[in-house]
Amino acid sequence: MSDTASYARTPRTVPTRYRDRAVWEKEAVNAVLDAGYLCHLGFVRDGAPVVLPTIYARVGERLYVHGSTGSRPMRGAADDQGMAVCVTVTLVDGLVLAKSAFNHSVNYRSVVAHGTAYQVTDAEELTVALDALVDQAVPGRSADVRPANARERAATAVVRLDLDEVSAKVRAAGAGDEEEDLDLPYWAGVVPVTQVFGAPEPAPHTTVPLPAYLRG
Amino acid sequence: MSDTASYARTPRTVPTRYRDRAVWEKEAVNAVLDAGYLCHLGFVRDGAPVVLPTIYARVGERLYVHGSTGSRPMRGAADDQGMAVCVTVTLVDGLVLAKSAFNHSVNYRSVVAHGTAYQVTDAEELTVALDALVDQAVPGRSADVRPANARERAATAVVRLDLDEVSAKVRAAGAGDEEEDLDLPYWAGVVPVTQVFGAPEPAPHTTVPLPAYLRG
Repeated sequence: MSDTASYARTPRTVPTRYRDRAVWEKEAVNAVLDAGYLCHLGFVRDGAPVVLPTIYARVGERLYVHGSTGSRPMRGAADDQGMAVCVTVTLVDGLVLAKSAFNHSVNYRSVVAHGTAYQVTDAEELTVALDALVDQAVPGRSADVRPANARERAATAVVRLDLDEVSAKVRAAGAGDEEEDLDLPYWAGVVPVTQVFGAPEPAPHTTVPLPAYLRG
Repeated sequence: MSDTASYARTPRTVPTRYRDRAVWEKEAVNAVLDAGYLCHLGFVRDGAPVVLPTIYARVGERLYVHGSTGSRPMRGAADDQGMAVCVTVTLVDGLVLAKSAFNHSVNYRSVVAHGTAYQVTDAEELTVALDALVDQAVPGRSADVRPANARERAATAVVRLDLDEVSAKVRAAGAGDEEEDLDLPYWAGVVPVTQVFGAPEPAPHTTVPLPAYLRG
């Protein structure tokens, strides 16, 4: 892989534990980000950490994270100097049950991105970001809604985080039992975990048929 | 509700946005915590926020969060003064599609707990915590594994966070469309999201039948 195909490794993106699970290839990082829509946004307030769930979208090598103009993290990011953040996306794929309690694990894909977030103020970029936020969870949806009007745009804060100091971690394997535990009379294996989208439930005021992008 | 039935409200646990979605009743907070097993642990390192996914367990009004002794957050919590943390648990229940982009939302249940985490050093408490961590995702499992030996216990760090400054937030509703948007020709409604556990996949070295706690 050439350098441009991977995110640079920094002290913050080289994990102290399970280094073999870490990946910096942009393709792998982006694949995890594209499979999710919910992130956990971390920031520091009065010296203490705060972690809030919110939605995000990836556009190229940039993350957009959704908020409201009145909310605490967004007020911080509105500052010219931006706000130090950590954006983490985690997808669980399975519970890994080993014969020993110690070797129990979770199959997962996660991305941790560090950096400085800035509030999106450019009108054109805000439009791109808002569409991307809608399409991240439901691809195609942004073309089939009433777009935000001026009042709504003013009430929505979106912050931008350039993907620069970022890494993914992936565990996708069976139970890693010790040699001496293999014959113990306990069940070992993986319980798959998936996120399932159920049949869409139309609102009473919906009169149009289910759009193609919501089928299947 | 009496005071003892709710967690105290503090500036950190009264949200600036969607205050009507916030709940402090212990029963409601605990119900969200008991439905999950994955949390996002936030802490501050060199002045910047770090958010890492890990597993947790609730025991009474206490959270135990899993780590490894060599990992960064655990080294911080091993200090006598503990480590400022924010533990956030988020369960997604649905994607809410409104007729306007602005009113799109997510149905979710989340808990945010602030406080100081301490590493569990008491041998008895560590046993309770390790069992709880295994049972949180798979109730009953801790009685059907080889318990951690001395070496494994020494390699596992568990931190304790007392549930004190904590709140839950819940959105469980349909599309909240504006009156003037109701007749727009777009589909509105909810796409349910659920976490599904698939059929357990036994490891090649598993010779015992599927235990009762893994059926169904």
